[in-house]
Order: sequence, then structure tokens, then C-alpha cells
Amino acid sequence: MIDGRMAPEGDPMTYCVAINVEEGLVMLADTRTNAGVDNISRFRKMFTWQEPGTRAIALMTAGNLSITQGVLSRIQSAIDRASAGEDVETIMNCPTLYRAAEIIGEAMREMTEAHGDAIKQSGASASASIILSGQRKGGRPRIFLIYSAGNFIEATRDTPFLQVGEHKYGKPILDRVITPETRLSDALKAAMVSMDSTLRSNLSVGMPLDLAVLKRDQFRFDQLRRIEQGDPQFGEVSRAWSEALKHAFAELPSFEV
Amino acid sequence: MIDGRMAPEGDPMTYCVAINVEEGLVMLADTRTNAGVDNISRFRKMFTWQEPGTRAIALMTAGNLSITQGVLSRIQSAIDRASAGEDVETIMNCPTLYRAAEIIGEAMREMTEAHGDAIKQSGASASASIILSGQRKGGRPRIFLIYSAGNFIEATRDTPFLQVGEHKYGKPILDRVITPETRLSDALKAAMVSMDSTLRSNLSVGMPLDLAVLKRDQFRFDQLRRIEQGDPQFGEVSRAWSEALKHAFAELPSFEV
Repeated sequence: MIDGRMAPEGDPMTYCVAINVEEGLVMLADTRTNAGVDNISRFRKMFTWQEPGTRAIALMTAGNLSITQGVLSRIQSAIDRASAGEDVETIMNCPTLYRAAEIIGEAMREMTEAHGDAIKQSGASASASIILSGQRKGGRPRIFLIYSAGNFIEATRDTPFLQVGEHKYGKPILDRVITPETRLSDALKAAMVSMDSTLRSNLSVGMPLDLAVLKRDQFRFDQLRRIEQGDPQFGEVSRAWSEALKHAFAELPSFEV
Repeated sequence: MIDGRMAPEGDPMTYCVAINVEEGLVMLADTRTNAGVDNISRFRKMFTWQEPGTRAIALMTAGNLSITQGVLSRIQSAIDRASAGEDVETIMNCPTLYRAAEIIGEAMREMTEAHGDAIKQSGASASASIILSGQRKGGRPRIFLIYSAGNFIEATRDTPFLQVGEHKYGKPILDRVITPETRLSDALKAAMVSMDSTLRSNLSVGMPLDLAVLKRDQFRFDQLRRIEQGDPQFGEVSRAWSEALKHAFAELPSFEV
């Protein structure tokens, strides 16, 4: 973590980004997962829950799929049991988002303790990470990045976005345009451009994408949609950005050679 | 090597790029090396030799410094002995650039065999890589990327650039603008922009930079210079690119939120 915004390298077959600006949160994830070169398949990496007016939460996962699926299964099971009237603490009824990050961290640590050694012995990486984003009534919008060991960091005013997976290709544009004062519509545009740069430079990150937008103090997702290959809006951003970059490059002062 | 242009991750404290276009070669390297968080220091990563009219070669190194310095020491020693009249094959008198890549590969493999295990036992990474670029009379300009094991790959028309070290931040712009037909002046500009993106996103890659430009069939470096912090030309590219990106981003179609 040289500059506070670097993400674990565990699973390059993923790119997820969450951005926290004053107007709200933007979350964008790809859906490609790879279990060997000849076996590329798609799994959701974004999972959302909302109790409109009270709480909305999105998780995005990267890294070992058996670990992250196990964590999600525990989280969903707790929510189901609470819905059935059982007295169990969940990410949807716990007092704060910070406590939700702790709950996810505990599940990550337990799954890693249970399976990590065996996974490593098989030659695979057991590392995994999860981005938790959301807002509860009475709190502010927050983003946490939770590691396999159960520890976590939070996005701050200085670092208003967090990424997991193949994060480097798409980081320069975020570094340049994202501040807490960035408009939510621009944060969404920046997430799209960041994903587009990643898709172009790394074939293992792929469409379709899952998008979630949560406006501040709404406690209900404003957008929750899948962006399919051929999506006209994403295609237009991709095409326009490519043109704009080429134009910007051509306009740079020339070098004598 | 998902897309043929990825580089080893061994040493993120470096960024070097070599670009091969029809008009010639551009090589750009940073100079920061880190042996612990509190001990950032500078070492050259670019080394050049030329016999004007006959052959010009540049090497750029990444990874374990003791390995790459050992390799360079052998290469230089062979060149010195040949200059003194000894009958020894060197990268400057061997018949082809391909053979030069083999010579460097042999030195890499021998250094890694001699020291790799002890380095790993000390907890450090022994991985290293070297980019060889140049042209000999009778041959075409070529770029090779040589790994610790002594094996190597070559830049082709499909992949006209090779990178080592912290290569991801600066790859999207190269992916977008570099083709074999790109003008040499634009290749130089692209190398600068690629380095600028890397410097902004990773504090462990740092100024000053070393630049080499070799026009096709000249067998003599056209430019060989150090770009210091505060260099007006690099500063202008950095500033103009930042402005151009912000402008291009603002001009993209907006999203409804």
C-alpha cells in the first residue's frame, strides 16, 4: 500500500471500483472469473441488499471464488435467519457500516482459516478481498475494503475511491478526476472510463458489468443494472473516450527527433 | 502473459519502456530504486553502447539489483576484454541482436543460479528482467525482453512495445496510440505520457529519467539524455496531458443519475 489506494493483487481476473463523493456512491464491477486459461466463465461479483428508507449495501468481491462465495453464503444465511425472526446480527441490522465491515471481516477470516492452507497446498491463491459500500439511516455513505485476514481500510476524503482486482490500468483517470466534490454523474463517468481502460488492457476482465448508484441519504439504490456487451451508453463512453484521448494526444506539444 | 505485452511484476520500483516503430526505437527508464521504505535511492537502469555506423544497443533493467548489476558487470567486462584484443564474444561483436539476447539470457541464468536461492532465503525476490533494444548494421531495429531464467520474447508488429517493472498504469495510452506506423516523435511523446501516468499513480517510480532515441539505420543514438526533475519539456507534456485529459473527460457525454 504505497499510496493508500492500492488493492490486493490476488485475483487479476476481476476489476471492481467504488467511489465515494459528497452526492453519493458509485459501484462498478465486471463479471468475468477464470478458473484456468481454457475455462473462462462469468460469476456475479456485485451483491446488493436494501431496506428502502433505512439501509442500502453493496458488496463487490475479488480473489478466490470459493472463499468469497463462502463469505457471501454466511452473510445471506444470517440475513435470511433474521428475516425469519431469529435473533442474529447481520450486515443489514447491525448498528453501523463499520460493524458490517467487522462482520464481513470475521467471515473472511473464518473462511480463510478453514480453507486457506488446503487451497495453498493445491497451488492456488487463497487471497480474497471484498469492498463494502453503503449507507444506513443516521450514518454517512462509507466504503470499506476488507482483506482475507479480516482487517479492513476505509475510503477517506484523501482517498475517495477503493478498487479490487486488476486496478492499475484504470487508476490514472481516477487519480486525476475524483475528489469528494466531484459530481455523482462525473463519478459514474469516471468509473466507466476506468473500467473501459481496464477492459482494453486486460483481456481477463470482461463484460457484462454490474452497476450500482446510491445517492446520499436515499437509502435505496438509484440505479442497479447490468451493462451488457453492446450497451449503447457504455459503448458511447468507450468510443468517445478513445477519440478524445487520441485527439488530446495529437494536440500535445511535439518532440523533435 | 495474458496479452503478450505484460511484464514481470518482480520490481515495482521501476518503470522502463521500449517502443519499436518503423522510424526507429524509443527507450525511457526511471531511476528510482528502493531497498526498503525508508531507503529510496537512485540507480541508473539504462545502459547504452554504440559503435557509430555499425551497432547501437540499450539495456534497461528491472528487478533484483544485485542480479542485474552482476549481469551488466559481465557484459561490460566482456566488451572491455574484446576492446583489449581478447577473442571473446560480446553483445557488441556478436552476429545478431538475437544472439545478444542469448548472451544476456545466459548471464541472467548464471547469476540467478548462483545467487537466487540465497536471495530467496533472505526473504527478497530474486526475479529480474532486462529489455534489450538496438540495431546492428545488416539487421532491423529489435526489442527483446529477457527473463531471469534466460528465456526471452521479442516485440513484434502486433506488440510493438515492451515494458518492465510497474507497467500497468502507463499501458493504456500505449495500447491506444502505438502501432508500427506511429511516427518516432509520437512514440517519444507516448513514452513520456506513459511515464507521466506511472509517476502520478506510483510514488515508488521517480525522476530523473533516462531517454534514448535510435533512428532506424543510423547505428548511433540520436538522443541520449537525462531528464531531470523540472525538465521544461517533460513538465510541459505532463501539464498539457493533465489539462487535455480533464478537458476530454469533461467533454464526454454525461450520465443521468
